Amino acid sequence: MQSWQLPEHIADILPSTARELESVREQLLGLFRVHGYELVHPPLMEYSHSLLTRIDTGLSLKTIRVVDQLSGRQLGIRADITPQVARIDAHLLSANNGINRLCYAGSVLHARPDGFLNTREPLQVGAELYGFADVAADVELIDLMLKSVAVAEFGDILLSLGHIGVFRALAKAADLSEQQAEQLLSLMQDKDANEVRAQVEEWKLDGMWAKAFSLLPTLYGSREVVAEARTKLPDLFAVGQALDELQAVCDAFPQQNIHIDLSELRVDNYHTGLLYAAYGSSCHDAIARGGRYDGLGVYFGRARPATGFSFDLRMFIGRLPHSPRMPMIAVDHKDVAAAHEVIEQLRAEGHCVVVDYGMDYNGNKNTTRRLVEQDGKWNIIDV
Amino acid sequence: MQSWQLPEHIADILPSTARELESVREQLLGLFRVHGYELVHPPLMEYSHSLLTRIDTGLSLKTIRVVDQLSGRQLGIRADITPQVARIDAHLLSANNGINRLCYAGSVLHARPDGFLNTREPLQVGAELYGFADVAADVELIDLMLKSVAVAEFGDILLSLGHIGVFRALAKAADLSEQQAEQLLSLMQDKDANEVRAQVEEWKLDGMWAKAFSLLPTLYGSREVVAEARTKLPDLFAVGQALDELQAVCDAFPQQNIHIDLSELRVDNYHTGLLYAAYGSSCHDAIARGGRYDGLGVYFGRARPATGFSFDLRMFIGRLPHSPRMPMIAVDHKDVAAAHEVIEQLRAEGHCVVVDYGMDYNGNKNTTRRLVEQDGKWNIIDV
Repeated sequence: MQSWQLPEHIADILPSTARELESVREQLLGLFRVHGYELVHPPLMEYSHSLLTRIDTGLSLKTIRVVDQLSGRQLGIRADITPQVARIDAHLLSANNGINRLCYAGSVLHARPDGFLNTREPLQVGAELYGFADVAADVELIDLMLKSVAVAEFGDILLSLGHIGVFRALAKAADLSEQQAEQLLSLMQDKDANEVRAQVEEWKLDGMWAKAFSLLPTLYGSREVVAEARTKLPDLFAVGQALDELQAVCDAFPQQNIHIDLSELRVDNYHTGLLYAAYGSSCHDAIARGGRYDGLGVYFGRARPATGFSFDLRMFIGRLPHSPRMPMIAVDHKDVAAAHEVIEQLRAEGHCVVVDYGMDYNGNKNTTRRLVEQDGKWNIIDV
Repeated sequence: MQSWQLPEHIADILPSTARELESVREQLLGLFRVHGYELVHPPLMEYSHSLLTRIDTGLSLKTIRVVDQLSGRQLGIRADITPQVARIDAHLLSANNGINRLCYAGSVLHARPDGFLNTREPLQVGAELYGFADVAADVELIDLMLKSVAVAEFGDILLSLGHIGVFRALAKAADLSEQQAEQLLSLMQDKDANEVRAQVEEWKLDGMWAKAFSLLPTLYGSREVVAEARTKLPDLFAVGQALDELQAVCDAFPQQNIHIDLSELRVDNYHTGLLYAAYGSSCHDAIARGGRYDGLGVYFGRARPATGFSFDLRMFIGRLPHSPRMPMIAVDHKDVAAAHEVIEQLRAEGHCVVVDYGMDYNGNKNTTRRLVEQDGKWNIIDV
């Protein structure tokens, strides 16, 4: 094993990519800022029981644990930032009983990659709104998610919507046990319509509920699905509420290409209501995902309504509109002292001035300009 | 144990501090950029043998290890970024046999804090120049270090200089065993002049070397120390070379308050020559530290001259010149649709426009302006 080899699904980010990531990070944090979202930096490492507040097998398997040398207790390296931000809202910013708008940008580590092509070190960026249960908050976040995605070039953007409230309302009305509900949810998540039908038949569910569960995997398509679901699904208050929220989102984005899928429930364990994601025609996976996760903060002393989204900044690599790089200006080492003021002035104006010691250097290929003295003046000449 | 408690020496960074850190990060990366330093992002996690290429007990004790679930091999969470950048220079950027200027900004984790007041999650920022052995490279890096420190307000800045070459030359000439050299270095690092004297007497070193080692802890002070050392220390070629380098740095910064200490050797194990640090009159510890570490890349296939510095970005917290925050502009939720274009225009200009749902929100205290319709026009009024 060579000392320069990296573990699987771990990579260096080299200059041109690092520059691109820095630029998109700056643009996104600027975007969040002008929408009133305050930046927080939770730590990379916490007691693992703080990171894993819900029984979430997926997150738990992804979380790297170590023993704290100072306390002997178990620490985790964060695999997701959202539960940390919920902790900050619940505990540290609890003086505000109203709305907290928070955002973050930081690395997380996964013990195992999410998939064959995925990194074990996503750069998670996201925004969250705490303290407002109305769908208006979800609309605000979806708007911000779509604006974030628009920073780069992902092709045509599809807004994908789901609502876990429909499934939960049916499961409750059909009197499913918790275990049954999880089992059925898992089949739904696998998009296995036949298995869903077979399962509800096996349980001998009341016909209305059996029919409703079997219907869910067929309720997908464009905006019309909301109206279709309203006619086909049992008239439960909570189902109606969920469909109202989906309708409100559709109405808020009249120009947006929308896909609704009532069995699209591939979510983090903490999600409780509306689910949203942005897909680009030039990517296989979702660019950004989010949803409502009311009550996550209860583990930190305060149950609060919450909605938010996040994404891996690495999705944006290679997709930023090309901004031509300003060529470097080289200056001979022996001229540095004499040209000191001119050099510092150029740098203050944003020019990259690199000292040339008469050797190859990393800027060589980009350097087409030199600072030279001509007739007692320092001029930039093309070479 | 409450779920909101954090491990010792681990902390959240809340909005006002996060904003400050973001601003200083942006300024520093901009500063590095205009000096020709290219940004790299090495990973948080690597095989531990890649992170710990030298026998460095300090770094080894600080490095958190876990078993890789994919390979069964030992991984480490980085406790220092410099060895990673040396790996990138040696292996990934090896097409350039000349100078590579690289910089980085990222979190590292320490299993144990460096001291009582220190964090276990420093935000390490640094710059490195590979491929040029001349002291001119050190001068370039010291200049960049002083410019970095000048971004914030640390009071009067003292440039502290040392050179491990003096000690190494003496140890070699006195024919000390490796073990003896490490023992003596450790006493020097503890600034224990009496112990140094007692030790060299115990070893019955030749008088000239015994005297020279005993002298080292007394050779500190301002610029004059270089001349003093030249007259008092044995006339060895390598000693003269080290003193020449110190003199060159002094000459390059004629206006700078400089402190030289030839027994100031509190360095990372990989340092091999000139050592530099910046102290501020308003801080107890060094703000930034650096030095020459030629040859670190040999473990990655390419021994290269190298010099660079780094610091914990958290040192800058609370020290940035105060930039008054632009007050938020609130807009009533019911006006959002009608004022859509005006709102997006304001945001594009950098104003923070926050939607007011008629509840408390995190911007309340900063919001003294509202966007309201007056006579068919959208105006910003003070409230």
